Amino acid sequence: MLHHVIELRFNDDTTDAQVEEMAAGLRGLREQIDTIRSMRMGRDLGLRADNFDFASLLEFDDQAGYLAFRDHPAHQQWVHDHVRPIIAERAGVLFLSP
Amino acid sequence: MLHHVIELRFNDDTTDAQVEEMAAGLRGLREQIDTIRSMRMGRDLGLRADNFDFASLLEFDDQAGYLAFRDHPAHQQWVHDHVRPIIAERAGVLFLSP
Repeated sequence: MLHHVIELRFNDDTTDAQVEEMAAGLRGLREQIDTIRSMRMGRDLGLRADNFDFASLLEFDDQAGYLAFRDHPAHQQWVHDHVRPIIAERAGVLFLSP
Repeated sequence: MLHHVIELRFNDDTTDAQVEEMAAGLRGLREQIDTIRSMRMGRDLGLRADNFDFASLLEFDDQAGYLAFRDHPAHQQWVHDHVRPIIAERAGVLFLSP
């Protein structure tokens, strides 16, 4: 299984509505991109001051499944419209696990 | 379920052996800390230049399970001995998902 791990730190002026719209958009991608095997996401609980604000965990069968997601127009539109405008920082890791 | 997501960027001089020792130590914590419900980890595949180097994904039943892990002496020793010396950056998120 290929794990796509993204952590986001939002801008100071990012609103809850913008975060919810971004998350709803990500959930919507599941209907449009059939290589996504699982999707979990959520906002940080605030137990540690230096944590990021949000994480999404997606799973794909393999690298081809991930690349289909990465290059899909709906994903790229979502990043342009709902992610880039509201984030100060992105931390990503893509790893394979048995 | 509570998701504990950690991404690490290693120092330039961090060796593969140090990374493997860190990962082996994390795997070893599963025997010592029984509140860990699942654990997955791996090194980034290198498909995107600005990605971090390593991610670990742990799951706990709830916040109490996470705090037992966070405050456990074995975990704190592992961070001191095997994580802090080899990392340039840490990105963490702790979130609840249904």
